[in-house]
Amino acid sequence: MKPAIAQRRIEGVLAPVVTPFRPDFAPDPERFVRHCRWLMKSGCAGLAVFGTNSEANSMSVEEKLELLEALVKNGIPAAALMPGTGHCALSDSVTMTREAVRMGCGGVLMLPPFYYKGVSDEGLFRNFSEVIERVGDERLRLYLYHIPPVSNVPITLALIERLLTRYPGIAAGVKDSSGDWLNTRAMLDRFKDRGFDVFAGSEVFLLDNMRGGGKGCITATGNVNPGAIDRVFRNWRGADADKLQAGITATRKIVQKVPMIPALKAIVAHFGNDPQWRTVRPPLVELSADEERSLITDLKAAGFAMPGLA
Amino acid sequence: MKPAIAQRRIEGVLAPVVTPFRPDFAPDPERFVRHCRWLMKSGCAGLAVFGTNSEANSMSVEEKLELLEALVKNGIPAAALMPGTGHCALSDSVTMTREAVRMGCGGVLMLPPFYYKGVSDEGLFRNFSEVIERVGDERLRLYLYHIPPVSNVPITLALIERLLTRYPGIAAGVKDSSGDWLNTRAMLDRFKDRGFDVFAGSEVFLLDNMRGGGKGCITATGNVNPGAIDRVFRNWRGADADKLQAGITATRKIVQKVPMIPALKAIVAHFGNDPQWRTVRPPLVELSADEERSLITDLKAAGFAMPGLA
Repeated sequence: MKPAIAQRRIEGVLAPVVTPFRPDFAPDPERFVRHCRWLMKSGCAGLAVFGTNSEANSMSVEEKLELLEALVKNGIPAAALMPGTGHCALSDSVTMTREAVRMGCGGVLMLPPFYYKGVSDEGLFRNFSEVIERVGDERLRLYLYHIPPVSNVPITLALIERLLTRYPGIAAGVKDSSGDWLNTRAMLDRFKDRGFDVFAGSEVFLLDNMRGGGKGCITATGNVNPGAIDRVFRNWRGADADKLQAGITATRKIVQKVPMIPALKAIVAHFGNDPQWRTVRPPLVELSADEERSLITDLKAAGFAMPGLA
Repeated sequence: MKPAIAQRRIEGVLAPVVTPFRPDFAPDPERFVRHCRWLMKSGCAGLAVFGTNSEANSMSVEEKLELLEALVKNGIPAAALMPGTGHCALSDSVTMTREAVRMGCGGVLMLPPFYYKGVSDEGLFRNFSEVIERVGDERLRLYLYHIPPVSNVPITLALIERLLTRYPGIAAGVKDSSGDWLNTRAMLDRFKDRGFDVFAGSEVFLLDNMRGGGKGCITATGNVNPGAIDRVFRNWRGADADKLQAGITATRKIVQKVPMIPALKAIVAHFGNDPQWRTVRPPLVELSADEERSLITDLKAAGFAMPGLA
């Protein structure tokens, strides 16, 4: 393995960056770079590009690598990037992870292979182990992506234990998108003191996660509300932390009244005055006009804004 | 669109061909060609390569295209091939489908994009429609792959209706792996007289499917028991059809006592005297020695054989 380079781990708020598409559904690197720049100056500590909310699995490996290269070439610091690199196909996961490490990404966020259901921890261990061994680079920081409501393939505590024991330093953390705080707390209790960073999968659990020893959150609404979420992260020990948390939770609740991915894109389109952002790739569909109108109305009524976007 | 070439549709027994891997998990084109030849001379009317049982989603697009080319180059008739070409990523589905049509494949068997759950029929229609329009070739015969226990994304009757109305001749049929005979019967009743071919997803339903107006079956155990299954297909109107059906159902029940994919590979390894066939890609794991021993013992006790394999 190549030797490790001491590098500070990413902590704070990460957005699973929404991916802009052209009218023919081709990824749009220019809009992508622009949105990533806005996120980095608006409160995001890092960018979990190619997450669930990025429609990452609706894109080919080649399309994603092209977008990743565009970010690095255009000055987004690679150390702040935590691209999603987990695919159904072992070979695709190896390709994406290897390229991410080569570009100097601060970490990768890896889904388990998610086609076959009911697979064993032994099979999942072999998957992650094969990727780590083939990439063969001590700079790899692998964050496991636990999102059973979508992947239907959970990352169990026993699997984390095994990976952390075999690959300390490389098995760097987890994003818990189970929506189950008790699960996040169990991860914190068991692994937080062993160099394993727990990120909440929603800002709704950010304050709880920080109080429990976590490192931040990787959250859909980080795409549109990064400043307010970052204030909770930076002030979690403060007297007004609960009040700040209540504010970001309220905003989240407005957004998740409608399907999340088209909602995020409609918000960026509206507040950025850029209608092309509404395009989603099949099998997703954009919000209806009614859904979008009531979403925007509710956000404005709550004082929501995206300063510097338009 | 390029003009259609009149070509007989595939009918009968198709195997979702298991994919051989080398010790380093690389696909093995030589063993693949050899097994496909054995299947074609042993009762298979066609080869649904890159299905669920092929570990197709554990391979990259490039790996699958290389295997497909190896088959065609080595004399497997392209008209008998029905490769799986459905991916999570629209761009991957287009690439695979386009190449399959270019090589002259008799059809393609398309999974819906399966990462996002709870997607709408509108979103799924857009996905299949985009693939059809981009491939833009009247030779395309698209078979929909309904396997909700694994994909978690169903192909509804309403979606079939819409695709068949918009793309008659191209929307050519379905493989129903729901395991629910009532669903297969509903597909037959509604679509069988409209140029839409229904294949059962297991030989357990083969006789029922033929009696209901279906065209055969695409079944895991077609990999190991194609001759006996083909006899049911060819004799479904005969006096001994029910008896023949009972025989293949009994064999199926022995095989599915253990996980199907490693079981099929263990059977090919054992009866073909070729241990390398046991290798599965993560996240799957091979059978334990005990599981394999009792599987082989039970098969032999039932008089099972694979003539001409070793």
